[in-house]
Parts: sequence; structure tokens; C-alpha cells
Amino acid sequence: MISIEEHLDRILQAVHQLPPREEELLAGRGCVLAEDVASPVALPGFTNSAMDGYAVRAADVSGATGAAPVTLPVLGDIPAGSTERHTMSAGECWRIMTGAPLPGGADAVVPVELTDRGLEQVRIDAAVTAGRHVRPQGEDVAVGDVVLQAGTLLGPRQVAVLAAVGRDRVRVVPWPRVVVLSTGDELIEPGQTPGFGQVVDSNGLMLTAAVAAVGAPVRRIGRVRDDDQSFRDALADALEGADALVTTGGVSAGAYDTVKAVLSRSGTVQFDQVAMQPGKPQGFGVLADGRVPVFTLPGNPVSALVSFEVFVAPALRQMAGQPAEPPTLEAVAGHDWSSPEGRTQFARVVLRREGADGVDWTADLAGGQGSHVLGGLAAAHALAVIPAEVTQVHAGDQVTCRLLTPLGTVA
Amino acid sequence: MISIEEHLDRILQAVHQLPPREEELLAGRGCVLAEDVASPVALPGFTNSAMDGYAVRAADVSGATGAAPVTLPVLGDIPAGSTERHTMSAGECWRIMTGAPLPGGADAVVPVELTDRGLEQVRIDAAVTAGRHVRPQGEDVAVGDVVLQAGTLLGPRQVAVLAAVGRDRVRVVPWPRVVVLSTGDELIEPGQTPGFGQVVDSNGLMLTAAVAAVGAPVRRIGRVRDDDQSFRDALADALEGADALVTTGGVSAGAYDTVKAVLSRSGTVQFDQVAMQPGKPQGFGVLADGRVPVFTLPGNPVSALVSFEVFVAPALRQMAGQPAEPPTLEAVAGHDWSSPEGRTQFARVVLRREGADGVDWTADLAGGQGSHVLGGLAAAHALAVIPAEVTQVHAGDQVTCRLLTPLGTVA
Repeated sequence: MISIEEHLDRILQAVHQLPPREEELLAGRGCVLAEDVASPVALPGFTNSAMDGYAVRAADVSGATGAAPVTLPVLGDIPAGSTERHTMSAGECWRIMTGAPLPGGADAVVPVELTDRGLEQVRIDAAVTAGRHVRPQGEDVAVGDVVLQAGTLLGPRQVAVLAAVGRDRVRVVPWPRVVVLSTGDELIEPGQTPGFGQVVDSNGLMLTAAVAAVGAPVRRIGRVRDDDQSFRDALADALEGADALVTTGGVSAGAYDTVKAVLSRSGTVQFDQVAMQPGKPQGFGVLADGRVPVFTLPGNPVSALVSFEVFVAPALRQMAGQPAEPPTLEAVAGHDWSSPEGRTQFARVVLRREGADGVDWTADLAGGQGSHVLGGLAAAHALAVIPAEVTQVHAGDQVTCRLLTPLGTVA
Repeated sequence: MISIEEHLDRILQAVHQLPPREEELLAGRGCVLAEDVASPVALPGFTNSAMDGYAVRAADVSGATGAAPVTLPVLGDIPAGSTERHTMSAGECWRIMTGAPLPGGADAVVPVELTDRGLEQVRIDAAVTAGRHVRPQGEDVAVGDVVLQAGTLLGPRQVAVLAAVGRDRVRVVPWPRVVVLSTGDELIEPGQTPGFGQVVDSNGLMLTAAVAAVGAPVRRIGRVRDDDQSFRDALADALEGADALVTTGGVSAGAYDTVKAVLSRSGTVQFDQVAMQPGKPQGFGVLADGRVPVFTLPGNPVSALVSFEVFVAPALRQMAGQPAEPPTLEAVAGHDWSSPEGRTQFARVVLRREGADGVDWTADLAGGQGSHVLGGLAAAHALAVIPAEVTQVHAGDQVTCRLLTPLGTVA
């Protein structure tokens, strides 16, 4: 048996960040930037008003108060979006809208609330200092400034910055295109009525949804028959346009374990017993001239899901240029449970807030822990990772948890 | 001025969970279930083997050891996916694969590793107890069991359970279809070269990406001109097939604030000053006979983003049947900063791990805090929420943060 760390290291050594691709700006959301982006423009692009009000020379209104207002002639309106270049002289002003270009000769804006809102002439009831309510050209970004660095994850705010500096396309590290392939003569599609001995390909659906939840595009190939030729045909189809391949089923010690039989002969896929529970039988390798990593996951649903979280998701994230390991959460065991000697246990746990301040978490085992039990798996919020050397978890022990669901959905 | 709580309460009172819709199973991922799902089948659907090995009567091998093995005739192979009903008598056995139906007359499975792997007859080197390595029919789920309750968020594991109990379609609460509409004569599309006085509609792109990040389908209508007819036309287009509408720009006190001017006359949209910084000018109401909530966000990018996080995202989540408020994170202020009196501050902060154990978080202000400054906004990990009564944050104070980016991407 090899350790989890050994198996994961081998995977993360073998999978590489995908080559950058140009995408439309909104399509790049969720990817990391593959280039430093320097701005070809200044932001703001022109000196403009931060308020609705009147563009003035501060010196002209330096004495203004409610008791001793200053009245100025209004040369006209400057709306936001005005592309005319206006100017003014001492003793004059323009009515101006938020975001509109400041006229030449003005150095401050008096907010409309401090005036009588006049159109021909305006009464100004308060002084402003030079520069007040003015956003100078280039204050935020100067020409040539690097606004975002390669490796930055593109969320809504990064999309806004890229748009603001003129980008409508962007070079990103794409997410790998993943194919999920289920093998087994016993499999039927969801919605079909199972005959004696048949089971729905729930693993294929689960892993397809899991890939999508990570953020990667996914294609599912269901119900591949348990014979070498069927699997080889499905494999050829799967490798078409795929960056990674995930199989489920067909890898234990049985006589009909086609996946293991065929891929063992490829010479580049290695099958191991990994010291974990569940999920012991693992296979990993690369196909298509070292280009496409393949993960052969066990057929038990809990084993398949745990294997996906522990090995596949980190690899997919690394291929997309993102941190491989997810953040973990520290919780306290709510009761005792046992863990197998010499194997890391991934216990399915339900989390609950503990204590008056509600900032601590308690982890309780989630229903049946058998590796075929879907009910307990679906109820769990997280996997509690119990190290291989621990055989007994005691109530009150600190346990590190990998979240299976967004924290916001945990009551 | 009204408080944040007052404005948010009014919004959450006015927006309602959308009517359920039937979706294909994988398309339902990310939605909450709108029905209790009872299983029409038992899981496992038939008693089956948990191991690759030999199906036996436990009594026949009760004395088996390595020194005194028991040899049994093998009646044949039962592969996974076998739909034949096999039987056996005392003193016989079947070779059987993981997941294959247990033959009638057998009550245990001897793992292949404890045998000589014989095909005609097999030598068994260890005893098993009755029921060992057998998964009884219905052990996980009995016919009629409710496997998932209404309100459950559908992730990969819930998809697996639904598939396993035979579902290929599912009733869910859909995400609202959102339209983002930007107004302003000064706006140009990303990729166009700005003339004097023009700015890219980065807000429209940002809010479109923000809606998508929440999980809702989104359509963007860009560059609506600042006149009543243009806005009314765009509004009619936007309301076509929309469940919610988000506008940006056109709501401050200026002469050309078309959004405010037109929607004020609708009689169902209310404009308020909300005691927050940034984001003071807020409008909210319902259009289309009370069916479509409309959020008019300020035009400053930071104000728009904060308003989205504080008011729009909770409303969209509530419409989708999900918890309105996101989880928060407690951090410690890394330095002093000031906050306006009487207004809740949403300070853009960068988070970093603090302390030897790396479980505590420190929050530092992220660059320029002006409401038009995109750079500081893009760099921030979170909004630190400083209550209205606090005017000075001191280094070491605890501050509650709303995350703007997944925690896994924070170094």
C-alpha cells in the first residue's frame, strides 16, 4: 500500500497547467489570468466630477456661506457622456453631472445640495477647496500600470477592471475539458426501471456533477460494457477533445475489471492500493502521449466521491492554474468513533455550530459509513480527515474537515 | 436616511421564492429541491456481494483455516450486471464479483484474497460469518423512504441519490433570470476606444459577472441612453422573460438621472438614501404587476458592487429558495482606519493568515477606498462591515467580513 501523499504527489507531478487561451471577457470568469495586464489608458480617462453640482474655481467661492452666498453665471450644462471640451474663466461656472468632464479652468465642484440649483445663475452657499469633488485623470490607474497580474482569478471585480482598461478579450488558463466514463454491464440510465441485478449509473451522474461543481466543462459517457473492445472504443471516443478522463468501476480484483485490464496494458497507467478508507483501489496515469491524465476511481459511490475530492479535484484545479488544495475547516468531534489502523479515514460528517458565539464547529458522523451507502454520503457536509496513525477519535478531538458543500448551506 | 436593515428588510419582504420547475437531473445542480423525494425502490435493489470472491454458506466454511482449508465445487461465475437468478445448495459455491447478485442459498462471501482463486473448485483458507461481505436488499434505502427533503441544495451527492432512486428529472426552485441594464450617454462597450468624456460600461460587465457568480442566468443590456424614451424601451425589453432587474447609473440627484425619473413615476419603485458607505443612493421596487423586483444601483463601481453584495445577491438567493445571507468571517483589523459617523462602512480589505497556527485572519484596507477606484476594489478579498456607530477602527479590533472571493484563493 502507498500513502495518500505518495499517490497525490505522483498525480500533481504528472499533471500540468494547460496552455493559455484567449476568451471573451465574460467567458473568462472563473479562470485565472495567463498574462500581466498593463493599462493602455489612464483611469479616470479624463478629469471629471465626483458629484452632481457646479464646476467652479475654488478661489471664486472661497468666502461663500449661507449668510453671504456667492452668485455666479452658469455657462450651461455638462452631462455625463458629454464629449465636448468646455472651458470657463474666473467668475463663471458650469452645471455638471457626476462623471462628466470638468471644464477647462475649473478646479472644484460645489455639490448641488449647497446651491439654489439655478440654471441661468446659481447661488452658492458654501466654500470648496481646490480639487474638492474632482477625480483627476489617472488618479486610479496611470498609463502602463499593471492592473492585474498573471495568476489572478477573474471574478466580477477583475472583469470590471479589464473592461475599464479596454479589454473585451483576455488570455486565461482554461479549465480542463473532462470526460466521465462509467463501465459496468449492470448499469442502466437514470429513469430506466432496473431489472434484477441492474443498478442506475448514479456514479457517472455524481462525478459529472462534481466536475461541473469544480468549474470545469464535462462530458459524460455512460454504461460502457465490461469487455475490452467496448472499453477501448469508449476510450478512443473519450480522448477526443478531452484534457482529463475520469472512469468509475472496473478496477478491483474481479475477473471482469475491464478498465484495469485494458489500461494496465497501456504501460502508462499504474494501479495501487492507497492507504485510505474508503477508496483503496486507485489508478492513475497519462494517455495520449502523456497529454491526458486518467483517473480510475472505484465503483462504490462513497469511494468514488472521496477519491474525486482527494485526487481528481486538486489535479483539475492545478491544470487550471488554481490552488490545488481546497481550504479546510477545523472542527471538534462530537462523539467517539473508530478509524482503521494504517489508513487515512475520510469520515462523512455533519457539521453544526457550537457554543454561545457560534464560531466553533462540531463534527458528527453522518449516518451509515459503508462505502456503498448513498444516504449518509448525501447528508454529510464534510469529510473529516483522520490520520492513518489514529485508530480512535474521541469526543472533543480536533478534526480537520474538507467541505463537501458551501459553508453558507450548513445550518 | 434609512438604515441598511430597513432597506434590506423591505427588499426581502417584497421578493418571493419562484414557482418550482421540472428540470433534467444534471440541470438541477445548484438549485434547491422543491419536493420531498420518496424512493419507489429499495437500495440496494437486490442483495449483492460487497467483495470479489466466492458466495458460500457460512456454515460450510466455519472451520476453514490456512492449515485446514475447505474445498468447494464452483458452480460458475456471477458477474456484476448478471440478471440471472442463481441458486446453490449446501456444500456448493459461486465465484462472484463486487455488486453482483448473491445467489439464492448463499449467506456470505469469502474474499478472493482468502482463496486459491479456483475456477472449477476453490480452496478456502478462512472462515466467514453469515452476512459477511453481503449488502442486503434495502439496507441503505427502503421502498417509500424519503431520501431527500424539499429545500435540499442539489450537489453531486444529491444528484447521485436521485439517480439511484430512478429519477432523471426533478422539481426544483429555479434561479431567477436576471437582466442587467446600464444607462448613461457616456458609456461605450469594452474593446471600443473611449473618446473624450466616454467610459467603458465596466459596471454592466461587473454586475453581469456578479449575477453569474451567484448562480443565476443573466442577460446584459448595455449602453442605454440617458433619455426617458430610450430607458422606457430598454425597460420593456428587459422585463421580457426576466425575474429580476438590476440597473446601474442614473439614480443620483443630477438633471439627467433617467432611471430615477422614469421609475419614480411607476409608483412602485422607491428611492432612498441608505446609511452606508459606499452606496448611499438606493432604489428598489417591483414592476410588471409586482412580479419583477428592480434594483437601481449607483453608478460608481465600488458603490454598485457593494450594493449588489448587500441587497441584490441576498434577494436573488431568496428567490431561489436558498439562505439569503452569505456566511461571514471574523477577522482582526491590521491597522487603524476611520469610518463615517452614522453610516455603515463596507471597507474593502485584504485578508491574511495570522499567527503560528494560521487559523486567524487579519484584515488590512485594500488600496484606494474612493467609490470610483477599481484597483482597490479588485485587490480586496472581502468587505469589512463597520457598524454605523463606529467612527474609528483600531488595530486589533474584531471586524466581521463578507467574502468577495472564495477563501481558497486567499493566500
